[in-house]
Amino acid sequence: MVDDIQQSKIIEIVELGDERGLLSVIEGNLTIPFDVKRVFYIYGTKEGIRRGFHAHYKTRQALISVSGSCKVYLDDLKRKDNVTLDSPKKILILEPNDWHEMYDFSPDCVLLVLASHYYDPEDYIRDYDKFVEVYGNGIL
Amino acid sequence: MVDDIQQSKIIEIVELGDERGLLSVIEGNLTIPFDVKRVFYIYGTKEGIRRGFHAHYKTRQALISVSGSCKVYLDDLKRKDNVTLDSPKKILILEPNDWHEMYDFSPDCVLLVLASHYYDPEDYIRDYDKFVEVYGNGIL
Repeated sequence: MVDDIQQSKIIEIVELGDERGLLSVIEGNLTIPFDVKRVFYIYGTKEGIRRGFHAHYKTRQALISVSGSCKVYLDDLKRKDNVTLDSPKKILILEPNDWHEMYDFSPDCVLLVLASHYYDPEDYIRDYDKFVEVYGNGIL
Repeated sequence: MVDDIQQSKIIEIVELGDERGLLSVIEGNLTIPFDVKRVFYIYGTKEGIRRGFHAHYKTRQALISVSGSCKVYLDDLKRKDNVTLDSPKKILILEPNDWHEMYDFSPDCVLLVLASHYYDPEDYIRDYDKFVEVYGNGIL
């Protein structure tokens, strides 16, 4: 299980804390392996919701739960994994070929996502069979 | 007061909500007027804390309270202003010459900051007299 989590490319950043409170920093192409073109955040997620259900052709992403917690299910056709994001210090890197689903959002969860590309609906693979076709390479 | 707030360059973004919950998107050089090189977030701020107390030579910033709320005091030597950040939809743009101080953090506040430059201690003006010298242009 630890091996699986390591495969899922989690980056732990150092929290800059002092008598005022806490601060964490992520620099594009330094802390994470790509420049940040797009930032989005998911919040006010209803109880029991599971969302995501897609992979990408190009977009790489960094996910951080900056408030509360949630879980991420990942599948790159070589391994399936479940990662808990429960700290502003913990960054999960998603490659384009990581099919991902987010679930178990706490009511106060704010999931911050830093993306390598602008929004482009053509870059989403929302059909699992298509995902297997694109990334399967005869594995399945 | 409304005029002051408008001068402080607040961008209201459209929240993408559906039956799952909410999502807001910020794209570098599109939603906000610069590319994002650095992302940081301030959280766990102690009660009564006021922080910031600086301006920049180059760095432009976008501030969003993605959880809870806080206030920002601004001074560009032409106007002084206090802006409340209390919504994930509300982006405050800070120019390099905006001396800024953040205060009245709610216990659950997560203040997300998108910055146009990598961290460089030389880009901070932390002395108010120096700030006036750099940006005053004989105004005072």
